[in-house]
Amino acid sequence: MIVVLKNGTKPEQIDNLKAWLKSMGIDTHMSVGVNHTIVGLVGDTSNVDVDLVRSLDIVEKVQRIQEPFKNANKKFHNERLVVDVNGVKIGGGEFQIIAGPCSVESREQVCYVAECVKKSGAGFLRGGAFKPRTSPYAFQGLQAEGINLLQEAKKMTGLPIVSEIMNITHLPLFDPVDVVQVGARNMQNFELLKELGRTNKVILLKRGLANTIDELLMSAEYIMAGGNENVILCERGIRTFETRTRNTLDLSIIPVLKKLTHLPVVIDPSHALGYSYMVKPMALAATAAGADGLMIEVHNDPPHALCDGAQSLTPDAFDDVAKAVFQIRPFACKFDD
Amino acid sequence: MIVVLKNGTKPEQIDNLKAWLKSMGIDTHMSVGVNHTIVGLVGDTSNVDVDLVRSLDIVEKVQRIQEPFKNANKKFHNERLVVDVNGVKIGGGEFQIIAGPCSVESREQVCYVAECVKKSGAGFLRGGAFKPRTSPYAFQGLQAEGINLLQEAKKMTGLPIVSEIMNITHLPLFDPVDVVQVGARNMQNFELLKELGRTNKVILLKRGLANTIDELLMSAEYIMAGGNENVILCERGIRTFETRTRNTLDLSIIPVLKKLTHLPVVIDPSHALGYSYMVKPMALAATAAGADGLMIEVHNDPPHALCDGAQSLTPDAFDDVAKAVFQIRPFACKFDD
Amino acid sequence: MIVVLKNGTKPEQIDNLKAWLKSMGIDTHMSVGVNHTIVGLVGDTSNVDVDLVRSLDIVEKVQRIQEPFKNANKKFHNERLVVDVNGVKIGGGEFQIIAGPCSVESREQVCYVAECVKKSGAGFLRGGAFKPRTSPYAFQGLQAEGINLLQEAKKMTGLPIVSEIMNITHLPLFDPVDVVQVGARNMQNFELLKELGRTNKVILLKRGLANTIDELLMSAEYIMAGGNENVILCERGIRTFETRTRNTLDLSIIPVLKKLTHLPVVIDPSHALGYSYMVKPMALAATAAGADGLMIEVHNDPPHALCDGAQSLTPDAFDDVAKAVFQIRPFACKFDD
Amino acid sequence: MIVVLKNGTKPEQIDNLKAWLKSMGIDTHMSVGVNHTIVGLVGDTSNVDVDLVRSLDIVEKVQRIQEPFKNANKKFHNERLVVDVNGVKIGGGEFQIIAGPCSVESREQVCYVAECVKKSGAGFLRGGAFKPRTSPYAFQGLQAEGINLLQEAKKMTGLPIVSEIMNITHLPLFDPVDVVQVGARNMQNFELLKELGRTNKVILLKRGLANTIDELLMSAEYIMAGGNENVILCERGIRTFETRTRNTLDLSIIPVLKKLTHLPVVIDPSHALGYSYMVKPMALAATAAGADGLMIEVHNDPPHALCDGAQSLTPDAFDDVAKAVFQIRPFACKFDD
Repeated sequence: MIVVLKNGTKPEQIDNLKAWLKSMGIDTHMSVGVNHTIVGLVGDTSNVDVDLVRSLDIVEKVQRIQEPFKNANKKFHNERLVVDVNGVKIGGGEFQIIAGPCSVESREQVCYVAECVKKSGAGFLRGGAFKPRTSPYAFQGLQAEGINLLQEAKKMTGLPIVSEIMNITHLPLFDPVDVVQVGARNMQNFELLKELGRTNKVILLKRGLANTIDELLMSAEYIMAGGNENVILCERGIRTFETRTRNTLDLSIIPVLKKLTHLPVVIDPSHALGYSYMVKPMALAATAAGADGLMIEVHNDPPHALCDGAQSLTPDAFDDVAKAVFQIRPFACKFDD
Repeated sequence: MIVVLKNGTKPEQIDNLKAWLKSMGIDTHMSVGVNHTIVGLVGDTSNVDVDLVRSLDIVEKVQRIQEPFKNANKKFHNERLVVDVNGVKIGGGEFQIIAGPCSVESREQVCYVAECVKKSGAGFLRGGAFKPRTSPYAFQGLQAEGINLLQEAKKMTGLPIVSEIMNITHLPLFDPVDVVQVGARNMQNFELLKELGRTNKVILLKRGLANTIDELLMSAEYIMAGGNENVILCERGIRTFETRTRNTLDLSIIPVLKKLTHLPVVIDPSHALGYSYMVKPMALAATAAGADGLMIEVHNDPPHALCDGAQSLTPDAFDDVAKAVFQIRPFACKFDD
Repeated sequence: MIVVLKNGTKPEQIDNLKAWLKSMGIDTHMSVGVNHTIVGLVGDTSNVDVDLVRSLDIVEKVQRIQEPFKNANKKFHNERLVVDVNGVKIGGGEFQIIAGPCSVESREQVCYVAECVKKSGAGFLRGGAFKPRTSPYAFQGLQAEGINLLQEAKKMTGLPIVSEIMNITHLPLFDPVDVVQVGARNMQNFELLKELGRTNKVILLKRGLANTIDELLMSAEYIMAGGNENVILCERGIRTFETRTRNTLDLSIIPVLKKLTHLPVVIDPSHALGYSYMVKPMALAATAAGADGLMIEVHNDPPHALCDGAQSLTPDAFDDVAKAVFQIRPFACKFDD
Repeated sequence: MIVVLKNGTKPEQIDNLKAWLKSMGIDTHMSVGVNHTIVGLVGDTSNVDVDLVRSLDIVEKVQRIQEPFKNANKKFHNERLVVDVNGVKIGGGEFQIIAGPCSVESREQVCYVAECVKKSGAGFLRGGAFKPRTSPYAFQGLQAEGINLLQEAKKMTGLPIVSEIMNITHLPLFDPVDVVQVGARNMQNFELLKELGRTNKVILLKRGLANTIDELLMSAEYIMAGGNENVILCERGIRTFETRTRNTLDLSIIPVLKKLTHLPVVIDPSHALGYSYMVKPMALAATAAGADGLMIEVHNDPPHALCDGAQSLTPDAFDDVAKAVFQIRPFACKFDD
């Protein structure tokens, strides 16, 4: 971190600053220029509060050099993370499609969809048991029963399952769930992240609707700081002024994350865009850009789905998308490691 | 809700739609125009999923007429809500300033600040015991000890206290807290909202960084649907591309909320903008626009605060702001009821 | 267009509304429902001001059904537009890369880059002669001399040239330019658009930084309403809160535009993102999603470019990107017509 | 400007950098730290391209210290600008309301409105003769005839007039116009700005829908660099995801601009928000925050206005707003100079 001091800062003020930094274990390197005095901070600055330093009367500008995340930082990992769930691998060159219904509705529904998506090549089954809904009057998911039904579909197909958690007290129910999803609205539910950091579950962490890529990495850091290193990052759209799509899918997150972190990156075009007709082109785009995986909603009967029908594909439409994705995958962008 | 059907929709498809709506207790009124057939939905449509209806093959457009919130809706309340906390009133013409440090740091700090802000006219003391921090390595608050210190400051000054909750399992610790704050990052932590709906605490609900005004009202609805009607709404800035301020303070939320809901509206200029020099003009603006209250950070020693120092006022600066606010308050915009 | 009237609207008010609409050539179809009266507008509503109708005292809601653009509307064109510039075709299945330096700097530079990009398979040479710069003190382009140099490069390579216009009085200088670009900042410079509508130049129209897709189409409509039907649309990023990229490249514009218009769609990843390392993955993504073309900055010596060096590729790096793009193109998403 | 070099930068690379900067008249001050070498740039860096420096292979980070605007910079002006138009003053403690119809429609309309707003205390008459409309099929203004009618209203009332220019070739028509407005969509129409910089007209420059405050100042700089120092800045809302208002009125621009520039700041709540019921609270807010003026739409018959009726006030409603504004003005925030 580099701190530029204002003109006219007095020597004793500089000494106070150095002493305060020293108390946090940070050494300083002073450089007196023509117009400005610059203080270089030496040491681990990840716990220095940039806003606080910026607020000091004597400070003109602050520039962070070091990223504030460590566990999630590619610099400190020689190899990209390959998450292995019962032999199904994602990351570090391994690509997977996670598919299934937005909400688990019935045994018939989830088992049928599971068999379909498996046949089309999906590596994971997704399904919502607990649903975050904007309205308290909307369907909130089958809850514990939903997890049971996912487990049956897993037994039948062998597909590992992905499901969203909203409340840490539900954790025991998630025992059969292979990948625990943290939804966009909970990306900065730090209490939930901390608890998940103490588990040995694979976590799929979705980017919040208005969160920066750096904040996504800091939320991953919350989980990893607790000892759980198995984190998959997922983009599902950010909020902008555009109204033809539900959200704006930010695919540039792929090269940015590939540069900053060793964690796998998954793209969810279904939730991001909100219309099924956009899923295929955006799934192909994400694959071509080098995503490690896709998350796609599939429903046996989209118009009667209890939620998010507008964005679901039928099993046949999903099969078409999956074929196109696997066809394009060999030509996808690769990132130097 | 009005549903516009596509040209060429078959009579049996229309019958199916009517039957499906009927199964949800919704009657329909058909209107066959020159270019389009329009279906008017009659009944309580607050639990109808607009996205799902829009996704149906036969549907061209959907327009919601009724707001999806009921308990928070001004239409169903003859009077504006006046929240009364130990005789300190806010809403319905009663105006209050909520002031205090971002984080509770020590007995001396919180008691000193409490006495100062009381003297300047604040009606509530705020102080963070549990702090939502982007980084897991940043100071997370004094936690239970912080609540104890707030309680001491309350005993000394008589000011009711406001503090943020992040985890529902902490609720017992919040027994001495008069107003429980839900922070921006937890505005859509629906599990937390549901639990708070079952308490009899006054809740101060902050708008999320990228949430619409309607979503804020739906989150209030989550709390109120559980039986807790004492909700105060708070604007603290939304995320935009502007970089000279931390967030963009959306003061137009005041007339919008005054039109839509009977709940009190509080504005927090300190967190929204991130710089103390902007607090006074924005506090005056919010007051003039007709806010029911302000939430302002005050710290005895801003440059050494453990968090958010850049946006804190000294007690003297706060006194100056409070004086100006109380001076302008009689000339503030009033809303017809 | 559908207009929902407020409860309690009087018959004479409805008659006034009908008469006013009639005066604009619009017939009405009335539907009296249980809660609301709905007015369906019959006729060409593209010149009805939605905001004005919404402002009427008796109006509750307005819903546009018809799109307000006609010339740019796919519904009124049986075939997708194929723009043919001296035999180089783009749109309707024909794919092209437009490549070249941000600014024309010298004969050597532009001719060398032109030969390089032609060898790599580019179909058009781009180069800025007039540069829109945020600062009046920054390099504003070689202007007329820049156009001359582009013309020389065109003679040498046969590549048609693309260059940006900022002032309609410069039009005579653009005689040798094959495709006249309207930059993001001028997307709603309606006076410029009208004038370009009276020319027979091919226009490449870039989306503004904060413009919706519908507004982009309305700007195309300005050009086409003047009689010039040769418009190519270009996405170059929208402004969001994300700071790791200069702008957020909205690739979902591809399926949206393919649904709404018959005009070709080009993606410019260089300007959108601002960093050369993101160009390859995003170029592949855009191609896979079904774009009709790409616009990519190439500079013989990026670190010494007079502008936008950070986002330019060297000719070698461009060759690598072009190879990957042409390899992935056969597997790109196709859109039903 | 401070440039942080990457670890491992070679001495000859540093020499090249210093030589390149020297060629632009910039001296350097080197500081070799433990982890990084920092180059401080000494001299006028307003014409150094930050993006270009950032793109150099050897550069890790760049931090601008100096603002890139000079003429518009408060640092270089001892006093705040007071714009004087025929004795009507705005800025530097002088406050004015600019009021009138969105579009000039007829002699009766504009003269009637002018007399009304004058009686209510407005200092300027506004009226659109040339209208920027999203649709080419919408009413584009009375154009030259509109200017004539404004001139008649000016003769009748003595109010100086404000009207928007969209095309520099119209400049001769603007001879009777006292304040020439540059609309949001033309804020970065640099060719128009340059031409206006060569006139001696007072310019009212509106912030673009997605432009930062710094970009607004750079556009003012374009005008001022040409020799025209009479620039008034105007906020009229920025684009966000919120849908209850047309745009989000960013009132924090007032303290930010008061810190950065000596130019007067005017707020336009009518265009920003799009609904007349929000005008009063936001006009009061802007006044309280310390704006130098307001721009408010007034129409004799809002529901029949040819454009923007939803946001217009009747003369009576305007009179009520103006009274409240003048009442609150003495208590507005003041800024140290």
